[in-house]
Amino acid sequence: MSKKFIVETSARHVHVTQEHLEILFGKGAALTHKKDLSQPGQFACEERVTIVGPKKEMPNVSILGPVRPETQVELSATDARSIGIAAPIRESGDLNGSGACKIIGPAGEIEISQGVIVAKRHIHLTPETAAEMGVKDKDIVWVKLDTNGRKAVLGDVVVRVSPKYAPAMHIDTDESNAVSAFNGLEGEIVKL
Amino acid sequence: MSKKFIVETSARHVHVTQEHLEILFGKGAALTHKKDLSQPGQFACEERVTIVGPKKEMPNVSILGPVRPETQVELSATDARSIGIAAPIRESGDLNGSGACKIIGPAGEIEISQGVIVAKRHIHLTPETAAEMGVKDKDIVWVKLDTNGRKAVLGDVVVRVSPKYAPAMHIDTDESNAVSAFNGLEGEIVKL
Repeated sequence: MSKKFIVETSARHVHVTQEHLEILFGKGAALTHKKDLSQPGQFACEERVTIVGPKKEMPNVSILGPVRPETQVELSATDARSIGIAAPIRESGDLNGSGACKIIGPAGEIEISQGVIVAKRHIHLTPETAAEMGVKDKDIVWVKLDTNGRKAVLGDVVVRVSPKYAPAMHIDTDESNAVSAFNGLEGEIVKL
Repeated sequence: MSKKFIVETSARHVHVTQEHLEILFGKGAALTHKKDLSQPGQFACEERVTIVGPKKEMPNVSILGPVRPETQVELSATDARSIGIAAPIRESGDLNGSGACKIIGPAGEIEISQGVIVAKRHIHLTPETAAEMGVKDKDIVWVKLDTNGRKAVLGDVVVRVSPKYAPAMHIDTDESNAVSAFNGLEGEIVKL
C-alpha cells in the first residue's frame, strides 16, 4: 500500500454547539447538509456566519457539521491578523486561552471569550495506515509536498489516529498558498 | 562566518515607474522616503495606492522606492485570490503574461495589463556570502526555517547574487504565516 495521503486545504470555518446554533439561526435550528467532507460523518453546511474581530469583520464563513460540544473558529493567520484577533496555533479542541470573537447569524449573535484558533497542521490516519507508515497518534512528523514551484517539507505536523478517520493531511490556506497546493496533491512522511 | 541569513517577510507592495507615479500622485510627484529596507538603496514610501481586481479592491498598499523601469504589484496568493486576480509565482521583473489590475492614487488611476505577481521566494546574497555558502546566482535551493510550531524546509528558493545586495531571504505573508516566521528568524541552506 502507498505511504502517501491526500493533502486537503481547510478554508476558514466554524464549528458550533447546538445552543449557539439556535441563538445564531433561531430556536430549533438544525444544520443543513451541503457536502460531505473527507472525514467520515463531517460535512459542510449551507449555514454561514460573520466573524467579528476588533479590527474588522469577515462575512460568509462556513459552518462545518455536525454540532460539537464547544464552538470553535478556525482561521488562517492571515485572516486572524486582518480582523485583529490573536489566535494561537492549536490542535482542534485545545481551546483554553485561545482567541475571542463575536459571531453573527441571521437570528442573533454570540460572544465567545475563547475558541478562535489557527489549526495546527495534522494528518488523519486509521490505525492500519498509521502502522504501515510507522507512526502513532500524537507523533510529530515532517511531510514532503512535491508541488510545482513551491516545494516544501513541512515540520511540526501532528499525527492523529482513529478508526473513524480517513487518511488525509489538513493544512490551512496560508500553508496551502505557501506550497502552491493543488487538487489531488499527496504528502509523504519523511525523516530529516 | 555564519552560513545563515535573516528571513524577512515582504508584505504586499507596489513598484512604480516615474510616469505612473505622476499619473497616480500628480505631475512632478516624487516618492517620499519613509524607511530604509534591508536591500541597499531600497526604501518604503509614504505614498499608498489602492489595487483593484475584478472581485474587490485592496486599499492602502505601500509603494517601495526608488521608481523602476516597470510597474509591478507583488501580492500574496491569498491577496490575489481575494481580489480576483490570477497572479503567477514569478521572480521580480519577470512580468510577461502576469496579472492585470487597476491602481488608484489620489491624483489619478492606471490600468496595467500585466505586472501583478506572487513573488517567488528568494535569497539575496553578495558574491562573498554566496561563495561561502557554495551557491551561485540562479541556483534553486532548500532553506530550513527553525521556528516554534511551524518548522519547515522551503524548496524552490531562488538564489540571487549581486554586490549591491545585503544577505537576506524574502518570503511573502502566506509563507511567513505558514512557517510562523518571527523578527530575527534566520534561514540556512540545506541539502535534502
